Amino acid sequence: MNNNKLGGKSVILRLEMNTNEVHFGQVASSIFEAGGDIVAIDVIQTSQNSTVRDITITVTDTVDIGIITEAVKSLNGVRLVNISDRTFLLHLGGKIETKLKAPIQNRDDLSRVYTPDVARVCLAIHEEQRKAFTLTIKRNTVAVISDGSAVLGLGNIGPYAAMPVMEGKSMLFKQLADVDSFPICLNTQDTEQIIATIKAIAPGFGGINLEDISSPRCFEIEERLREELDIPVFHDDQHGTAVVLYAALINALKIVNKPIHEIKVVVCGIGAAGVACSKILLSAGVTNLIGVDRHGALIAGTAYDNAMWQWYAENTNPNREEGSLRDVIQGADVFIGLSAGGLLRREDVMTMADNPIVFAMANPTPEIRPEEVEDIVGVMATGRSDYPNQINNVLCFPGIFRGALDCRASTINEEMKLAASEAIASAISDEERSRHYIIPSVFNQAVVKAIRDLVIKAAIRTGVARRIPREYR
Amino acid sequence: MNNNKLGGKSVILRLEMNTNEVHFGQVASSIFEAGGDIVAIDVIQTSQNSTVRDITITVTDTVDIGIITEAVKSLNGVRLVNISDRTFLLHLGGKIETKLKAPIQNRDDLSRVYTPDVARVCLAIHEEQRKAFTLTIKRNTVAVISDGSAVLGLGNIGPYAAMPVMEGKSMLFKQLADVDSFPICLNTQDTEQIIATIKAIAPGFGGINLEDISSPRCFEIEERLREELDIPVFHDDQHGTAVVLYAALINALKIVNKPIHEIKVVVCGIGAAGVACSKILLSAGVTNLIGVDRHGALIAGTAYDNAMWQWYAENTNPNREEGSLRDVIQGADVFIGLSAGGLLRREDVMTMADNPIVFAMANPTPEIRPEEVEDIVGVMATGRSDYPNQINNVLCFPGIFRGALDCRASTINEEMKLAASEAIASAISDEERSRHYIIPSVFNQAVVKAIRDLVIKAAIRTGVARRIPREYR
Repeated sequence: MNNNKLGGKSVILRLEMNTNEVHFGQVASSIFEAGGDIVAIDVIQTSQNSTVRDITITVTDTVDIGIITEAVKSLNGVRLVNISDRTFLLHLGGKIETKLKAPIQNRDDLSRVYTPDVARVCLAIHEEQRKAFTLTIKRNTVAVISDGSAVLGLGNIGPYAAMPVMEGKSMLFKQLADVDSFPICLNTQDTEQIIATIKAIAPGFGGINLEDISSPRCFEIEERLREELDIPVFHDDQHGTAVVLYAALINALKIVNKPIHEIKVVVCGIGAAGVACSKILLSAGVTNLIGVDRHGALIAGTAYDNAMWQWYAENTNPNREEGSLRDVIQGADVFIGLSAGGLLRREDVMTMADNPIVFAMANPTPEIRPEEVEDIVGVMATGRSDYPNQINNVLCFPGIFRGALDCRASTINEEMKLAASEAIASAISDEERSRHYIIPSVFNQAVVKAIRDLVIKAAIRTGVARRIPREYR
Repeated sequence: MNNNKLGGKSVILRLEMNTNEVHFGQVASSIFEAGGDIVAIDVIQTSQNSTVRDITITVTDTVDIGIITEAVKSLNGVRLVNISDRTFLLHLGGKIETKLKAPIQNRDDLSRVYTPDVARVCLAIHEEQRKAFTLTIKRNTVAVISDGSAVLGLGNIGPYAAMPVMEGKSMLFKQLADVDSFPICLNTQDTEQIIATIKAIAPGFGGINLEDISSPRCFEIEERLREELDIPVFHDDQHGTAVVLYAALINALKIVNKPIHEIKVVVCGIGAAGVACSKILLSAGVTNLIGVDRHGALIAGTAYDNAMWQWYAENTNPNREEGSLRDVIQGADVFIGLSAGGLLRREDVMTMADNPIVFAMANPTPEIRPEEVEDIVGVMATGRSDYPNQINNVLCFPGIFRGALDCRASTINEEMKLAASEAIASAISDEERSRHYIIPSVFNQAVVKAIRDLVIKAAIRTGVARRIPREYR
């Protein structure tokens, strides 16, 4: 953990002081001299010779917390028990909890929610299994499942360390779309065992959100689960990104006034997200799409180790363009980057078609920084929140699962994903739309409702809805 | 589902009426004449020719709901869409939901609980795995897991139908002990796959409560998970029952004034609960314990198919008493029934020692009904709430997991179970104790705290606590 630079934030030092050796004034002075501003002191415990206190300190961006902690630790009689900041404090004991929908106040309540009266509810489901959708949490609950193999930009950090991300996802499901959700991190990275485990725990869930599972295992895991389960299975890193990317592209193309079936698109980085983004664009009508990975443009007729690349090469690049990114980017209308920081250069963008659209989504460093090409691009977007037009999959998953659960969809199909993109794009009106505003904010409360409505309609239209909500009858 | 007799409860009939064929007055009359009392009417939907209404009806115990529904269905132009009662309504959409511990109100909150700032928390856990206990829901969360193979008295009804019971258990964990919990029902009844699945999902949990898994698979599943996981694994049907039974016995023995190491105990029904009850009594000092199942008393030297019976026979019945229940019950001080209704007769009880203790826990019908032997027993208990002295495992599991989580116990061992029994027994003071009051109510709020305290002390004493709560340092 990097505590050296926490930005303009508050940190809390828990100090144990031997009161025979040091007095608090000395501690306060050393913190002040090292650049810290004490804003609160809480006494945690005292005994005859020692006292434990939480010292809350505000620091500016330029102050090194490490200098403060070293100054404190160098005092005789002071032990630094712990250092926390607001982010860590928010995580103490986890970020979600169980809530009862109704309290159990007396024997009568107990008999209804538990034995003996609950038996009648169990038997009703036993007689007709689909009643699980009305009489259990299956109606509104999505599992957020990861094996911890590709967490954020951190890589394979395992199931224990992945939990805070999955808990955060569960929070977003609830807060943004009132979807109940539970995070499950798997202590296995074996494809077959992951599939078997998720199938085994599926009965209580109305949907499965796969998260942060590394490529190429994620393809087989999702595909098999989609075949073998009768509830939606959605790998968010693939499809969430794809849905939001296509939403952004819908609005960007309106700005540069180009029809989707005429554009040339180059996708750089053919991993899980790159494949999903390419597939949604093909579904949406893009015909001239070229994928580029570390070996250069993917071309039909070449033999690739990666089965997904093989599929990709055979279904894209109709003109069989060869060479590196630098070669195939020439004349492209759209660049989609899901690769690594700095891969695209200003000179490359200058060879693109007029009013080029550059979506540089590598995290944390984009393939090219907006400030380098601001003057020569038509529309620019990144994955970052500190530039305009953030392509953030938080825009997609709450609403798409809200819609899928409300119509008891058996799957989330391509039509539902395209509908979700249309809904996200439509959250920005013609008047509002500009080259710096093609994507709504994740806090735009109209987005979830808009996605839900179009997703339900698409599910009904394609025959995967098992319940028609009253307003659509 | 048996709708014919719902007791003195309210039911809701959802009726669709063709307004050309029938008017509401006719419906109301037919309900009244069949013995129903209409207490509320809610119009759900209307169109030109039809109307859907929810009719809430109160019925007394003597009225047959079936007669009311038949009367309504016999009217032309009326369709009975649905019938619900309060128990079913309580289950709509499930009984628990996700709750955020802190809301996500702005971009700053989002970055702390999700990307990018959450990455620092992930890395902290990656560097030191035990921090998962402080920084994730693992600190306070127990999985309630069943394969639906032995649910209540309903048998093998499967994972979908088992969910309402597991959700009820999660409610009780939260309400009684502030333990967060999530119900997981497994779509497999294969021992190895159950073990593999639970091991795979364990990282996010601080404990595993196994529930309603049939015998003898439950023994191997629990034993293996106890060996292979570093968090408590507790099969409640076995140990919850055993803990509460021993608590009841502690107080019953005080009433009849017999020392535990001198009593003769007969256990009838050597399934999961019978084995666990016997083991805890052996740990507590009982020496003369005889198990009886359908082949009669279990005796060392006999070859049994069931591995657990083999173990049992070799470790009990020191005097090698032979024969049926009727034979070995003679002179016994304590009868413990975990078998089936009606197996014990008044004549059998008359052959027991003075002041016999009879715990007839078969559900729903006890081995012998209290009214049959009230005049000749010292102390009597059952598993039912409508007699005094209910042996109910709701008394145990919230407190024992509260204690285990608070000291991060790696297991729940025999000493912790005995401590839980002592705590439950001690919730009734010497003054309060009587032959009709040996067990506290499940709503007695002192019980959880009492169990927690003694369980933590036992965990510390036996070296399985990985954290010493401040009050015990």
